[in-house]
Amino acid sequence: MKLLNTQNVLIVGLGLMGGSYAKALRRLDFHICAIDKDPDSIEYALGAKIIDEGSTEPDRELIGKADIIVFALYPMLIKEWISEYQQYFKSGAVITDVTGVKSCIVYDIQEILRDDVEFIAAHPMAGREVYGVRNSTEKMFRDANFLVVPTDKNTQQAVEWCKELGRLLGFINVTVLSPEEHDKMIGFVSQLTHCIAIALMTCSDNTHLADYTADSFRDLTRIANINEVMWSELFLLNKEPLLADIDRFISEMTVLRNMLESGDREGLKAKMRLSTQRRAAFNKV
Amino acid sequence: MKLLNTQNVLIVGLGLMGGSYAKALRRLDFHICAIDKDPDSIEYALGAKIIDEGSTEPDRELIGKADIIVFALYPMLIKEWISEYQQYFKSGAVITDVTGVKSCIVYDIQEILRDDVEFIAAHPMAGREVYGVRNSTEKMFRDANFLVVPTDKNTQQAVEWCKELGRLLGFINVTVLSPEEHDKMIGFVSQLTHCIAIALMTCSDNTHLADYTADSFRDLTRIANINEVMWSELFLLNKEPLLADIDRFISEMTVLRNMLESGDREGLKAKMRLSTQRRAAFNKV
Repeated sequence: MKLLNTQNVLIVGLGLMGGSYAKALRRLDFHICAIDKDPDSIEYALGAKIIDEGSTEPDRELIGKADIIVFALYPMLIKEWISEYQQYFKSGAVITDVTGVKSCIVYDIQEILRDDVEFIAAHPMAGREVYGVRNSTEKMFRDANFLVVPTDKNTQQAVEWCKELGRLLGFINVTVLSPEEHDKMIGFVSQLTHCIAIALMTCSDNTHLADYTADSFRDLTRIANINEVMWSELFLLNKEPLLADIDRFISEMTVLRNMLESGDREGLKAKMRLSTQRRAAFNKV
Repeated sequence: MKLLNTQNVLIVGLGLMGGSYAKALRRLDFHICAIDKDPDSIEYALGAKIIDEGSTEPDRELIGKADIIVFALYPMLIKEWISEYQQYFKSGAVITDVTGVKSCIVYDIQEILRDDVEFIAAHPMAGREVYGVRNSTEKMFRDANFLVVPTDKNTQQAVEWCKELGRLLGFINVTVLSPEEHDKMIGFVSQLTHCIAIALMTCSDNTHLADYTADSFRDLTRIANINEVMWSELFLLNKEPLLADIDRFISEMTVLRNMLESGDREGLKAKMRLSTQRRAAFNKV
């Protein structure tokens, strides 16, 4: 199982992420095909030479010649798509995805998949506040993390293959995590923060304060601009870890508000020292 | 009451903010004096030509010749300092500050102040995650807001004078607010966000996740690196507005977690649409 730049890559779902994969890999001379039900996305990508071939249908020929298939669809659509069209997969093909939740789909996909192809899950932790293939750019991978998320069913070759894919795409860090570790981590560093940003915007109408906001507020709420279809699905598919994180966070906010109410200056200072100390670990090198 | 670049400015408290005022005003040919109890800060500022004269003591001569006095001290120290040394103030001097809370100090200061000088409160909404005169820079004013916070006791001339000061310092926006409006606004856009960033860091030890963090997490927690002496004081001095904000926020987080728990997809989507719509008002032009 090797990554060769003569291989045919099929991208299923040509949005922001699919388009960015296409741009990064086509630049390395892979042959790029894409399937997306939106004719405008396919037409644009062909015209802009982001892809070599494209179709708005699950084209049997495009599917059948792919050495690599990347699913850049909403989580729940992937399993359905594979059930229906895996009959056309090339024997020996390697399949991967870009989904932000793992436990709820990876095992199911591996369960139903043909034995002569392999699915290795990945999560490119990159994004923008805009959508669609027109906004795609491989630049968003540069400072970002690429997570390879294997199960016991995966071969070591597939894990190595997927790590190499992350490096070829241009990610600065490539890491391997189990689906459970992944979902717990993503609940905390990504979903909880999105939930906080939403609550900050919806807890009261403060748009009249826009003129007064400092950078800290804008940074914190940048992600409150959110695709509600995708993120409601991601939240619900990772319900248990995310609920645990939200509960821990609410309980800590309550500790802080009680310290404030009772005038516990030393308690507040101790919390601030701890937060400063822990935050230091998150500074970029 | 005019801002003339031949005037003597005295900065009391030569840290990050005092030093940045000094740099911005000295470049405009004001004569800059500073008082700070730390000999290293004064020595450094003299050597680096950030100030023209300096003292580690409340020097009677420096105080007496100042046309403008800027207090860049911790909130509760200002009143004390004025009580003790206002006997040396030049008649007609204009006094301002840089404090992040207003109602709790402005009225008190105006109450005790001599009749022949005027105190006009200001809040330069700029900052860095580093401290001290060595890190001072007038560049931090460029994209920031300068708030003039007058009371009924202030003259219209002092308000105009202070607005002009904000423009001379290089702030992009200069706005006038009452102390009560100011404190309510700052509770929401600044203090609540700092409180959230602290709670996110202290709710569990997640430093082992540092390798996996996305930009959104780093943006949200940048301000968790916090000066505990200053911020515990700011929180406690603005207790009522901040408590109300924290309670509203906790209650909204609870609504979201209950939607998640009960699988209320449409409810989550509606919250996300509202947050996206409101956040649009905060985008920088």
